[in-house]
Amino acid sequence: MRILLINPNTTESMTMTAAKAAREVAATGTEVLARTSRMGPVSIEGYYDEALAVPGLLQELAVGQKEGAEAAIIACFDDTGLDAARALATIPVIGICEAAVATACFIAQRFTIVTTMKRSRLPLEHLVHRYGATGRCKVRAADIPVLSLEDPASNARDRLRSEIRLALQEDKAEAIILGCAGMADLTRELRLEFGVPVIDGVAAAVKQAEALISLGLSTAKSNAYALPVEKEYVGLLSAFAPQALR
Amino acid sequence: MRILLINPNTTESMTMTAAKAAREVAATGTEVLARTSRMGPVSIEGYYDEALAVPGLLQELAVGQKEGAEAAIIACFDDTGLDAARALATIPVIGICEAAVATACFIAQRFTIVTTMKRSRLPLEHLVHRYGATGRCKVRAADIPVLSLEDPASNARDRLRSEIRLALQEDKAEAIILGCAGMADLTRELRLEFGVPVIDGVAAAVKQAEALISLGLSTAKSNAYALPVEKEYVGLLSAFAPQALR
Amino acid sequence: MRILLINPNTTESMTMTAAKAAREVAATGTEVLARTSRMGPVSIEGYYDEALAVPGLLQELAVGQKEGAEAAIIACFDDTGLDAARALATIPVIGICEAAVATACFIAQRFTIVTTMKRSRLPLEHLVHRYGATGRCKVRAADIPVLSLEDPASNARDRLRSEIRLALQEDKAEAIILGCAGMADLTRELRLEFGVPVIDGVAAAVKQAEALISLGLSTAKSNAYALPVEKEYVGLLSAFAPQALR
Amino acid sequence: MRILLINPNTTESMTMTAAKAAREVAATGTEVLARTSRMGPVSIEGYYDEALAVPGLLQELAVGQKEGAEAAIIACFDDTGLDAARALATIPVIGICEAAVATACFIAQRFTIVTTMKRSRLPLEHLVHRYGATGRCKVRAADIPVLSLEDPASNARDRLRSEIRLALQEDKAEAIILGCAGMADLTRELRLEFGVPVIDGVAAAVKQAEALISLGLSTAKSNAYALPVEKEYVGLLSAFAPQALR
Amino acid sequence: MRILLINPNTTESMTMTAAKAAREVAATGTEVLARTSRMGPVSIEGYYDEALAVPGLLQELAVGQKEGAEAAIIACFDDTGLDAARALATIPVIGICEAAVATACFIAQRFTIVTTMKRSRLPLEHLVHRYGATGRCKVRAADIPVLSLEDPASNARDRLRSEIRLALQEDKAEAIILGCAGMADLTRELRLEFGVPVIDGVAAAVKQAEALISLGLSTAKSNAYALPVEKEYVGLLSAFAPQALR
Amino acid sequence: MRILLINPNTTESMTMTAAKAAREVAATGTEVLARTSRMGPVSIEGYYDEALAVPGLLQELAVGQKEGAEAAIIACFDDTGLDAARALATIPVIGICEAAVATACFIAQRFTIVTTMKRSRLPLEHLVHRYGATGRCKVRAADIPVLSLEDPASNARDRLRSEIRLALQEDKAEAIILGCAGMADLTRELRLEFGVPVIDGVAAAVKQAEALISLGLSTAKSNAYALPVEKEYVGLLSAFAPQALR
Repeated sequence: MRILLINPNTTESMTMTAAKAAREVAATGTEVLARTSRMGPVSIEGYYDEALAVPGLLQELAVGQKEGAEAAIIACFDDTGLDAARALATIPVIGICEAAVATACFIAQRFTIVTTMKRSRLPLEHLVHRYGATGRCKVRAADIPVLSLEDPASNARDRLRSEIRLALQEDKAEAIILGCAGMADLTRELRLEFGVPVIDGVAAAVKQAEALISLGLSTAKSNAYALPVEKEYVGLLSAFAPQALR
Repeated sequence: MRILLINPNTTESMTMTAAKAAREVAATGTEVLARTSRMGPVSIEGYYDEALAVPGLLQELAVGQKEGAEAAIIACFDDTGLDAARALATIPVIGICEAAVATACFIAQRFTIVTTMKRSRLPLEHLVHRYGATGRCKVRAADIPVLSLEDPASNARDRLRSEIRLALQEDKAEAIILGCAGMADLTRELRLEFGVPVIDGVAAAVKQAEALISLGLSTAKSNAYALPVEKEYVGLLSAFAPQALR
Repeated sequence: MRILLINPNTTESMTMTAAKAAREVAATGTEVLARTSRMGPVSIEGYYDEALAVPGLLQELAVGQKEGAEAAIIACFDDTGLDAARALATIPVIGICEAAVATACFIAQRFTIVTTMKRSRLPLEHLVHRYGATGRCKVRAADIPVLSLEDPASNARDRLRSEIRLALQEDKAEAIILGCAGMADLTRELRLEFGVPVIDGVAAAVKQAEALISLGLSTAKSNAYALPVEKEYVGLLSAFAPQALR
Repeated sequence: MRILLINPNTTESMTMTAAKAAREVAATGTEVLARTSRMGPVSIEGYYDEALAVPGLLQELAVGQKEGAEAAIIACFDDTGLDAARALATIPVIGICEAAVATACFIAQRFTIVTTMKRSRLPLEHLVHRYGATGRCKVRAADIPVLSLEDPASNARDRLRSEIRLALQEDKAEAIILGCAGMADLTRELRLEFGVPVIDGVAAAVKQAEALISLGLSTAKSNAYALPVEKEYVGLLSAFAPQALR
Repeated sequence: MRILLINPNTTESMTMTAAKAAREVAATGTEVLARTSRMGPVSIEGYYDEALAVPGLLQELAVGQKEGAEAAIIACFDDTGLDAARALATIPVIGICEAAVATACFIAQRFTIVTTMKRSRLPLEHLVHRYGATGRCKVRAADIPVLSLEDPASNARDRLRSEIRLALQEDKAEAIILGCAGMADLTRELRLEFGVPVIDGVAAAVKQAEALISLGLSTAKSNAYALPVEKEYVGLLSAFAPQALR
Repeated sequence: MRILLINPNTTESMTMTAAKAAREVAATGTEVLARTSRMGPVSIEGYYDEALAVPGLLQELAVGQKEGAEAAIIACFDDTGLDAARALATIPVIGICEAAVATACFIAQRFTIVTTMKRSRLPLEHLVHRYGATGRCKVRAADIPVLSLEDPASNARDRLRSEIRLALQEDKAEAIILGCAGMADLTRELRLEFGVPVIDGVAAAVKQAEALISLGLSTAKSNAYALPVEKEYVGLLSAFAPQALR
C-alpha cells in the first residue's frame, strides 16, 4: 500500500516528524510517501494560514495521486482543506483530527484534545462538532507557538503537560488527543507518564488510510465531493484549473 | 459609509449584478466599492473552486481595507473564506448566506434556500447549521450551472421557479432565500410572482454592513479571529505573508 | 422611515433611555416613535410580569401601526410578546434580545449576555436557544432589580461591571451583550473600559428595523404568524378582539 | 385531592368537555374544580389569542388556589401561560400538552400530535422541543377551527381521522396524542378504531397532578419560578399586581 | 391496581427498602407486588452487572405479569433492561430514572441526579439524554458503593449530602433526584434539610404506573417493542425462549 | 495480531459467514479467532433477543481474551452488549455497527443503513445517534427475518436490493451500510451493482481492531468502563461473577 502524507505547511522538519510517526505504525508493506507543501505559510496557526495552505496542499495531492498513492493524509490538525481535497481526489483523503477523534471514540466516552495556540481552540471545537463528538470531547490550548514544539529551549512541552493534567482533572478526560502534528513524537512518553491512552492523529490516520485501502473504499463522488467542474482559472492560480491539475 | 463588495470569482459581469443589487438597497450616503477577484476560478461551484477562490478574495479585501472600506461583503453564497477574511480584516466582514439567513429569521419560522448546483446543497446545509438555523431552513438545488443564470437561452430560471414552488408546497417554506449572488436581480420579480418574502443575500448583507458600521462594531479579535501571526510565506503565495498583505 | 419603539413596561423614564439609544444610531431620515405601555407592570422581572405586559404592548403596537410605523421594536430584553405581536402586525416586529444576538453572531464566535435579575437567566437561555445561539452564548445575571439601574445611589452598575469581568475571564466571551433595555446608555463607556465589543439590544434592533424596511421585507403571514382569526373577546379584555384592535 | 382545571378560553361548553374527561380518570377521592376564564377569547387559535388568554387564566388560578386546590391544570393544548402560572402559584401547575407528551414517552418511541389549525403546528413543535421530545414526536394539523369540534354538522372529526391515518402510515407513529382539549371525548372511540394508544392531554394531566400531590412535590421556587416581585401595576390590569392577586 | 416492583439485583433488603417507599405513596387500593431477582449480581454497579441482571429481571417480569400485575417498575436507577422488558411485556413497564426525570421536568427547569458510584455517572448521562433532559439535568456521583447505603457505620450518607450541597451551589439545581433505589428512605429527610424538592425514583414510578393503568394505556407494540419472535434458545438460557417465558 | 470475532447468536453458519468476511480483509499476519455463543437465541431480532444474547457473548469474550486475543469484535449489527463487554475486557472491543458508521464518515457525507427487520430500525437509529452520525445517516429495514438471508429460496435479497434503491433515490445516500452480519458476503456484488461504496460492518471492524492493536490503544478503564467490581452472583448466572469469569 502507498500512502501519501502531505504536510500543508512548508516546514520540512515537521514533515519529517510526521513521517516518522507514520512509518512507526504503518503495516509491513505500507509505503509512506511524505510530501511538503511548496507554497504558503511555514506553520499553520489559525484561519488565515489555513486558507493559504490549501493550494499548496492540493498541488501535492495531485502529484502524489499521479505517483500512485492509494490514500492521502493531511498532516495538520486543523484538517486543512479536507473538503477541497476530497473533491479533487479519487483516492480517499483523511484528516488527522478526524482520524484521532474517530479512534478515540472506540476507546473512551470522554476525551480532550490538547492543541497549541489559543486561537485554534474554537476552530477545533467546530471540527469536533462536525465529526459528531461534541459532548464527548473538549478542546484545550497550551498557548504555545507551533514551531516552539521543535525548540528544546522553549517551555512548550511543559505547558503541554500541565494542560494534559488539567484535562484529566477538570474535564474528567479518559484519553488525550495530541492536537498538533508536531507533537507526534511525544505520544509514547506521555502515555507512560499519565497512564491513559494518548492518541496522535498522524498515526491514527495511517491506520484509517490502510483500512480504507484494504476495504476497497474511497470517497463517494456523487454530491459535494463530485470531481470539480472543468473551467477557466485566471491569474496567479491559473495552473489550478481542475483539468490542469488532475 | 464605504462598503467593500468582493466577488470571489473572477467573472466581472457577476460583480456587476451583485453591485447593482447592493446599490439599490444601500442607504443614502453609502458608497459600494465593488471588486472582482483577480485570481482563481471564473465561477465557484463546490468545495474545490471555493478553496482556490480564497487567496484572490483576501487580496481584494486587503486592498479595499487600505482604501478605506468600513465593512466588507463576500458576494458568493458559500460565504467563501469568511473565517480567513475575518481574521485578516480589522473591519467587519459579512457573508451573504449568513446575512440572508439572519434576515430570514426575523420574518419567518420556516424558510428554504434555493441554490444552483446539487453539489452545493450539503455545503449550504453546513452553513445553515453553523448559523443556528438547522430545523428552520431547508436547502434545495435547481441543478443548474452558476453561469447559466446569465444566459437568457438557458432554462435556468424556469428550474429555479419550479424549485421555489416545491419549497412552498413540500417544505411549507414561509420565505425563500435566493442561494446565489447571480440571482440578485430576480428578487422583486419572484416576490410578486409567489407572494412570499424573497431574500437576496447581497442586499441583506449591505444592510448588515451598514448596521455594524453605524453601531461602531467590528469583529472581536481575541480568539480565532486574532490578527494572523507574522511569519514567512514561500513559493507562489509568498506575497500573502500577513505582514506583507496588511 | 418611521420606527415604532414600544416599552412594554409602564415606566416612562425607561422609554426615554431606550428612545435616546435608538435615536443615536438611527439613520438620517429615520423617525423613532416611542410609546410606553399604558397597562401592566412598572418593570418586567420574570415570567409573570412578562405575561401581564403583553396586552399593553399589543395595544401600543396597534396604535403605532395605524399611525404609519413601518417596523416595530419591543424594548424589553425578554422579547415580551414577540410572537403575539408578529401575528397581530403587518409590519415587521423585532425583539431587542433577538437583534442583539443576531448582531453578536456577525462579530464574535463566543459572547455573553449580562442581565439584571437571577430569575431572568433561564428565560434568556431559552431565547438564546430559540435564536440558534446555544453553545455560542452564555447568560449571566448581576442580581440587581431592573429599576436600580436608574438609581445613582445603588451599586447596580458596579455589579454589572464585575459580571462582565467574569464573562471575559471564565466564559472566554469575545463580546458582551447588555441584557436590559435600561442599560442602553452604558454601551460606549463599557466598550472603552473593557476593550471588547459591547452590544445594546435597542440600538441593534433599530438597525435591523431599518434593514427590513429598506429591503421591503415583513413577517411571513402564512403559518403561525397569520393574522388573528376574528372572534368574540369577553370581559376586561373585550376590546382586544382582533377585529377591534386592528 | 382537589385539582383545579382551568379552561383559558371563555367557552363554558369546552370547560364541560374537559371536566368530564378529567373526572372519568380521576382517582376515588379526587375532586375536579373546573373554572372557565372570564376574560379574553372564546377560543385559542394561535399566538395572539394565547397571549390574551393568559390574564384570565392567572385570575382563575389565583382564585382556585385560594379555594384550596392542590394542583392546577391548564386545559388548552398550547399550554397557555404555563410559565407565568408556575411563577404565580405555590401549587404545581401542569400543561396538557406537557402531560400528554410525558405520558406518550413511557409507552412509545415515536408518536404524533394531531391538532386543529395549521397555525398551531409550529407553536406545538416548539413545545415538543421544550419538553425534550423532538425527534420522537411529529405534529400534524387537521386544518379545522377549534369550535367546529363541537359542531356535529361539520366534517371536523372526519378530517381528524384522516390525519391520524397519515400519522400511522407516514410518520410511523406508534401512538397518537389528541392536540386539543376539545377532542377529549373522542379518545376511547379512536383507540378502538385505530388499535393504537390514543392520549388525551386532559386525562394525562389529571394523573400527573395526582402524582405530584401524592409525592408532596411542587414547583421549585428558586430561579425563574420564584414568586413575582411585589410592584405597582397600572391601567386596565392594575388588579393583577402580584400582591393583589395572590 | 396491582403494580409489580422488580428489584433486578438479588439483595432482598434493597427490595424491602424500595417496596416500603412504593407503598408509602401508592393510592388506596393499589397493591405493590415486590419481587427480587433470583439470578445475577447482588448489586448493580456499572454496565457489566447491569447486563447480567437483565435475565433475572425478565424472569420476574414474566411471573409477575402472569400473576395479574397491571404495570411493572424496574427498581434500579440505571433502568436495567427497560427496552427488553417493554418488548416482553404486554403491561406498561417503567424505569425509576425515567419516572424521576419526567417528574422533575414538571416542577423544575434545572435539576441534578446524585448517584452512588463514579462509574455510573456517564451511563446516567446517557439515560438523561434519552429521556430528553440533557441541558436541564446534571449527574453527580457521591463515590460510594451501592450497599454501603445500608451500612450505618459507613460515611455514605454524609458524602451524599455534600454532593447535594454542591449540586445546589455549582449546578444551580432547583431540585434533586436521588440516583439509587437504595436511597428511597432518605427522601423526606433530605427535603426538609435542603429545602428543595427531592425526588425518589421508586415513588415517582409508582405514580406513573398508576397513571398509565388508570388511563388504560400500555406500550405500543408496533415497532421495536413488538412481542419477541418465537425461536429456539439454547444452553444455560434455553428457558428464556420467548414462547417459554411468556 | 489475534482478533477475536464473536457471534452473539448461537447459529454457527452465521459465524462462518462473518469469519469469512473478516478473513478476506484481514492483514497478512492477522489471525481471526471466530467463536459462537453457546447460550441464548439462534438469531437476534430486537431488544429481547439482544439482552439474552449478552451473557453468552461475555462468556466467549472472557475465553477468547484468555486465549490471547488482542482485540474483540461483536459480530451482530445491534452491537450487542458493547458496553458490558468493554467493561469486562482489557483488550479493545469493537461493534460492527460502530465500525461501519465510523468508516462511512470518512468517505461520505450522507449514507443509509439497510437492515433486516422493521423492529430493528429504531434501535439502530439510537446507535447512530450514539455514534454521532444523526443527520448524516438514515436507517431502513427490508422487512425480512435475519435467517432468511441464508435461505436461497426466500426473496430476502431482492427486498434488500429494493431498499438500497430507495436509499439512493429518496435519502440521497452516497454510500450504503449493510445492517446485518449475515449480509457480509453480498458486499462486493452490491458495490458493483449499484456503483456506490457499500460497507460491511464485519470487515470494517477487522480494520479498526487492527488499527487499535497497532497503535497500542485499548479501552480507557477509568470511568464507566472500569473493571467490574468483584462481588457475589447467584442462581443460574453465578458463574458470571466478574472474578470468576475473568
